[in-house]
Amino acid sequence: MGNKIGNLTGGIPGNLPEEVFTVLAENEHVKIERVVSDGHASPEGFWYDQEQDEWVLLVSGSAVLSIVNETGIEQVELMPGDHLLIPAHRRHRVESTSATEKTVWLAVFYSCSSTQSTGSTV
Amino acid sequence: MGNKIGNLTGGIPGNLPEEVFTVLAENEHVKIERVVSDGHASPEGFWYDQEQDEWVLLVSGSAVLSIVNETGIEQVELMPGDHLLIPAHRRHRVESTSATEKTVWLAVFYSCSSTQSTGSTV
Repeated sequence: MGNKIGNLTGGIPGNLPEEVFTVLAENEHVKIERVVSDGHASPEGFWYDQEQDEWVLLVSGSAVLSIVNETGIEQVELMPGDHLLIPAHRRHRVESTSATEKTVWLAVFYSCSSTQSTGSTV
Repeated sequence: MGNKIGNLTGGIPGNLPEEVFTVLAENEHVKIERVVSDGHASPEGFWYDQEQDEWVLLVSGSAVLSIVNETGIEQVELMPGDHLLIPAHRRHRVESTSATEKTVWLAVFYSCSSTQSTGSTV
């Protein structure tokens, strides 16, 4: 069997009423996912609170995240190439994504470790 | 502590006598790594034969890989946004990378699973 090559910009519909989630690779402990947003934001009052660490890369477009830290809520703006580790259970939400172009994210969710060499923990 | 944001194009020296490997996040079973090539290729006769699955994304630049499949050696050309799963122990090498611009890769190495829902195994 040959090697299956995908492209991060492939298969994106022109009109996106909802965000599009595409699993690119996974096993039981790791999931690599593409997310395409088109001006979407998290619902009012909704916060992600995840069981797994999430490493996220903003591939194209732009976004503003809110992240709950020890000292309060921090807003971070992400531009293409920006990446960030969001440790498990660090609450966060997407405040906004670009209104003028699609925003493509790459997210890697992972667990299965008791140690963590990169990133802070709350 | 605030959230540490990096950028995939950050901290790349102008002159790269060797490829540059930067670990962006890791735990004992997952490693997310940026690789920057500047016309580099694998040494003559060298083949990677890795213990872990590797999901690789070509972020910018271009490259040609050779991959050993059941039917022989397949050459694949990668352009920006192209991604590929290279299962553990699938031998492969980098034949070439762009001579005119730096090639930035994102590689996710992972293991710790007995099952594999994406990608083929040899």
